[in-house]
Amino acid sequence: MVSGTEKADAVERDEVHGATNGFASATDGLCKTNDSLCNGVSPFVSLKNKINNRVQSKDPWFSLEFFPPRTEKGAANLIGRLDRMRDGNPLFIDITWHPAGDPGGDKITSSTKIAGTILNYCGIDTMLHMTCCNQTRETIMKNLEKTKSLGIRSILALRGDPTGDEWEMNENGLNYSSDLVELIRQEYEDYFSICVAGYPKGHPDCSSYKDDLVNLKKKVDAGADFIITQLFFQAEEFLKFQSDCRKIGIQCPIIPGIFPIQTNRSLVQLTKLSKLEVPEDVQKIIEPIKDNDAAIRNFGIDYATDMCRELLNSGEVLGFHMYTLNLETATISILENLGLWQQKISRPLPWKISGNHERQANEQVRPIFWGTRPKSYIHRTQDWDEFPNGRWGDSANPAFGDLKDYHLFYLRSRTPKEKLRQQWGEKLESESDVWKVFSQFLSGDKNEKGIQIKETPWNDDGIAKETDTMKDFLTKYNALGILTINSQPNINAVSSTHPVFGWGDEGGYLFQKAYLEFFIKREYAEALKKILPKYEPRVNYHMINREGNEDYTNADRQTPNAVTWGIFAGKEIIQPTVVDPVSFICWKDEAFGLWIEKWAKLYEPETKSRAVIENICNQYYLVNLVDNDFPKDSILWTVLDEMLKTAGVKF
Amino acid sequence: MVSGTEKADAVERDEVHGATNGFASATDGLCKTNDSLCNGVSPFVSLKNKINNRVQSKDPWFSLEFFPPRTEKGAANLIGRLDRMRDGNPLFIDITWHPAGDPGGDKITSSTKIAGTILNYCGIDTMLHMTCCNQTRETIMKNLEKTKSLGIRSILALRGDPTGDEWEMNENGLNYSSDLVELIRQEYEDYFSICVAGYPKGHPDCSSYKDDLVNLKKKVDAGADFIITQLFFQAEEFLKFQSDCRKIGIQCPIIPGIFPIQTNRSLVQLTKLSKLEVPEDVQKIIEPIKDNDAAIRNFGIDYATDMCRELLNSGEVLGFHMYTLNLETATISILENLGLWQQKISRPLPWKISGNHERQANEQVRPIFWGTRPKSYIHRTQDWDEFPNGRWGDSANPAFGDLKDYHLFYLRSRTPKEKLRQQWGEKLESESDVWKVFSQFLSGDKNEKGIQIKETPWNDDGIAKETDTMKDFLTKYNALGILTINSQPNINAVSSTHPVFGWGDEGGYLFQKAYLEFFIKREYAEALKKILPKYEPRVNYHMINREGNEDYTNADRQTPNAVTWGIFAGKEIIQPTVVDPVSFICWKDEAFGLWIEKWAKLYEPETKSRAVIENICNQYYLVNLVDNDFPKDSILWTVLDEMLKTAGVKF
Repeated sequence: MVSGTEKADAVERDEVHGATNGFASATDGLCKTNDSLCNGVSPFVSLKNKINNRVQSKDPWFSLEFFPPRTEKGAANLIGRLDRMRDGNPLFIDITWHPAGDPGGDKITSSTKIAGTILNYCGIDTMLHMTCCNQTRETIMKNLEKTKSLGIRSILALRGDPTGDEWEMNENGLNYSSDLVELIRQEYEDYFSICVAGYPKGHPDCSSYKDDLVNLKKKVDAGADFIITQLFFQAEEFLKFQSDCRKIGIQCPIIPGIFPIQTNRSLVQLTKLSKLEVPEDVQKIIEPIKDNDAAIRNFGIDYATDMCRELLNSGEVLGFHMYTLNLETATISILENLGLWQQKISRPLPWKISGNHERQANEQVRPIFWGTRPKSYIHRTQDWDEFPNGRWGDSANPAFGDLKDYHLFYLRSRTPKEKLRQQWGEKLESESDVWKVFSQFLSGDKNEKGIQIKETPWNDDGIAKETDTMKDFLTKYNALGILTINSQPNINAVSSTHPVFGWGDEGGYLFQKAYLEFFIKREYAEALKKILPKYEPRVNYHMINREGNEDYTNADRQTPNAVTWGIFAGKEIIQPTVVDPVSFICWKDEAFGLWIEKWAKLYEPETKSRAVIENICNQYYLVNLVDNDFPKDSILWTVLDEMLKTAGVKF
Repeated sequence: MVSGTEKADAVERDEVHGATNGFASATDGLCKTNDSLCNGVSPFVSLKNKINNRVQSKDPWFSLEFFPPRTEKGAANLIGRLDRMRDGNPLFIDITWHPAGDPGGDKITSSTKIAGTILNYCGIDTMLHMTCCNQTRETIMKNLEKTKSLGIRSILALRGDPTGDEWEMNENGLNYSSDLVELIRQEYEDYFSICVAGYPKGHPDCSSYKDDLVNLKKKVDAGADFIITQLFFQAEEFLKFQSDCRKIGIQCPIIPGIFPIQTNRSLVQLTKLSKLEVPEDVQKIIEPIKDNDAAIRNFGIDYATDMCRELLNSGEVLGFHMYTLNLETATISILENLGLWQQKISRPLPWKISGNHERQANEQVRPIFWGTRPKSYIHRTQDWDEFPNGRWGDSANPAFGDLKDYHLFYLRSRTPKEKLRQQWGEKLESESDVWKVFSQFLSGDKNEKGIQIKETPWNDDGIAKETDTMKDFLTKYNALGILTINSQPNINAVSSTHPVFGWGDEGGYLFQKAYLEFFIKREYAEALKKILPKYEPRVNYHMINREGNEDYTNADRQTPNAVTWGIFAGKEIIQPTVVDPVSFICWKDEAFGLWIEKWAKLYEPETKSRAVIENICNQYYLVNLVDNDFPKDSILWTVLDEMLKTAGVKF
């Protein structure tokens, strides 16, 4: 998928808010291991082992730290950001603990909720910070249970910041992060990978650097698997720290926390909280440009790049933990400079797999319908314990959850209504105005207002790359009122490393049957019904109206049709995408619903524009077509031509 | 598979023995329906519906009646005969009830046992006769339960013959076949398809033709699904009978029982039992040639062919029930004359599916290893309630049953030991004598004694057709001591109607990975181990010795490799054959065991010949190789060449 909004556009500049627990306390670093994000369908690989594998394979990597946004809009933007940043292949995402923001709660802005959403809906392995001071053991246990129930299996265990100015011992509670580490190990054994923070300059509350090292050793001995360091300004600081750790017997991976200087304001705030001093030479450079954000950011990028390069060259560092401040530009630039930003992801399956370990181990097939709305699919199947596995038809299909709310923060478009109206029409006079929107979305041509249409209600992430290969056909047919919302070309024994179609292990062969899904008006549907028998059994079809009282198919109503499959060395056939007739009935409601929820509601009730969309929703048919004869050129265009001719359309 | 022994050779001429219940009582005819034998993996289609479907589609068919042989050897021969006759595509096999032969028992010659074996091991739908007179209700229920437990779902309900000369009423038991029909319907509802016998000339014990028709109506009203008639000699006899049946309201299919006159002796015996008179014109023809079996058989073929043709032409008959007398020549000739003997079977899967409805509904994948020994596979998995389904690795593999007895009557070669020694060597001096046997088996060349080698211990049914395409390669390598026991060529998108490779629905595409399985001596195995890493990951291998203490593979030990799969319209991928590493360990014992059980034991203990075979069994390795790159020419020959070179063999 090519995302429509790649720029650091609408991100909410939450900046570093009050209690930056995660932030002020996360940090120390070296790294290890060999399992890139999201690439083991199963079996589950713990974060501890992923890092250790990288150490073994000497394959460099990075992770990204974010804090929970303060608003629902900020949360939606963060999810959008992570959908994009996922493409760079971070080993994991790290979400800080925000005590003031109900961190263990169910608010959209709760730390736990945000971390769970990233894991489950963005499909990236996710670590959650957690603090222990000023909390009862019961609260901590509740938070741990919640974390577990969301599928999160990595925790950065922190003490947390004092409520007053000074930290005070709590005789009945947990006082140190080592207490929290101990509690987690005691209650959950190896279920969680546990990270602790290291301080290259010593913890600000600690009497001495040496005492702090002893303290860190204690945390590791309590069961921590790896260390992330607080930010620092000189490579040698980290290297000395790491070497000192090794000397007192700390053997686990230590990962340097990298802070890209992005604005003077955030730098000042950060160093104040962390009680670190900015080196003189840095201060000297920043002072004259401190009001020029762009200049500071560029300096920050260069500075961090140099430091990271020095660390890499030392041979003592393989991975970097990036304090992103919820921004992407500086972080991506540094990682690009270092060659760590890997735009080419190896996809284990043609659809984005979830980061949730249970889902990874169980889920191997999805219906093609939600291909452009994967988050909705995950949402509607979130309660499933078992997934149709290999053979979809065999499992008694668990029921799809209702999609009651089309506006869940991780489902909704991040484009404001005003901008959507600019794309889809300020005022719609007729159905053909709508046809034009579909056609222009595909062609990339600007509309009358000079606006390029970058999304439709059915395509969260813009146009998929493979759609490009059919762009001219699709543009033409959409202009004629065949409103396509999903499609794939047929492919025959394409390499599994193909830049557009590739997924799965190297050396495999991939296949697809041509697929088209579209809305058409009743007259077209009648014509289609007339001509389809000529194409049996080559073409399978399913057509249905909104009510479901018109429902035609030539397929077995229980049997899925595999439309994407791969053949690999030493494996069974993998068939990750099917046209499943049972799910189609369910998808139908969502697909028709999007007309109303996402489009009609952009306009006031009783307006012509709204009536045009509502009429389409009520009158049109949703149709899917599969050309089973995958080695031959797709016959679906011929079918459409004949349908149009039969309907008396001249084209 | 091409069977080695196609002639009506060793069949035991059991002839018509004493109580020919099934025979003397089976008969009347018209027919109906549309589901050919063995072609629905699932769902289950009852025999009643198969026949009705044929009536609907006006597609002619035939069924074959056999009686249980009296000896174990006879039973083995009958199974061999049915393996061959299955190729003609009978709608079902019908096994008579032999009261004197412990018909409901577990003897190899018991009617129930024979019927169950044909159903489960030959993969043909099977009907069993059952009588009710002179038996307690308990015995009858026991027989019905046994029948059900074997998977048989069709019963021909008969009264049975009297114990004395005259039939006597039994006040406490079941006296008429209508009683038995009623009992079955009452206890099993629609579980069984029920057939009853019709008598075109009236039952010999019945007072009049008319009374007998009323009696037949009673049987149908009690719940019978169709009727098979007693033999008759004139087409009009049957047509009149059928018309009379219709007149009194018998609406179910009536199938004519066809008796090919084969010898004068059997004709006399039969007519005596059935109290039928042979028409004068037949008698006149037979009298002068009555001692010339061949002449009588030829007459019988012509006579039955003419009669059947007349029935077909009447438009009132679609199916024929053939009284084979356990012989095949005459029956096949008649069916060939009528165009009903269909040599080209449509195979639902590449391996012969079982006739057992539960197995049909459950079983979709088999390991390739038993491809040449399907009956052994069925035997060793007969207790499985669930079969690895689609995805082999997912089910906790049920355990394979032990193969304690290599000489089960349906598993063993029907060739006498003496003839096997003539093929495989009266006296073996060295391993290369054994190599020659393998090579000559494949080439078809005769051995020194002028004998053609038609079987090996690992190939029940001779050489598979697809092996032909690799014959030259295989002959060459076997002569060099690479003793192949299983193989398949790679195929890439071959049509599902291909004469050699075809299976499954029309219009599908079939694929195979090249596969080779062979025994080699230790020196070869060492060389192979050395060179195989060069071919990774393209080639998967598994090599193991008899003890299992040497066991090498580059495949995941839990993951099967799909080596045969098919893509069809509107379906999921079908992958019926896999190289399953778990089953291979189990197959290994059987494959090595065959050296001893089937070959070494042909020779006296302490002989050189026996020692040669035992030594091979103890020293050789069993190897399988898969070339995963199915679109390219098989690389396995290259691997073998390099192995031979590395082992210093000049060739």
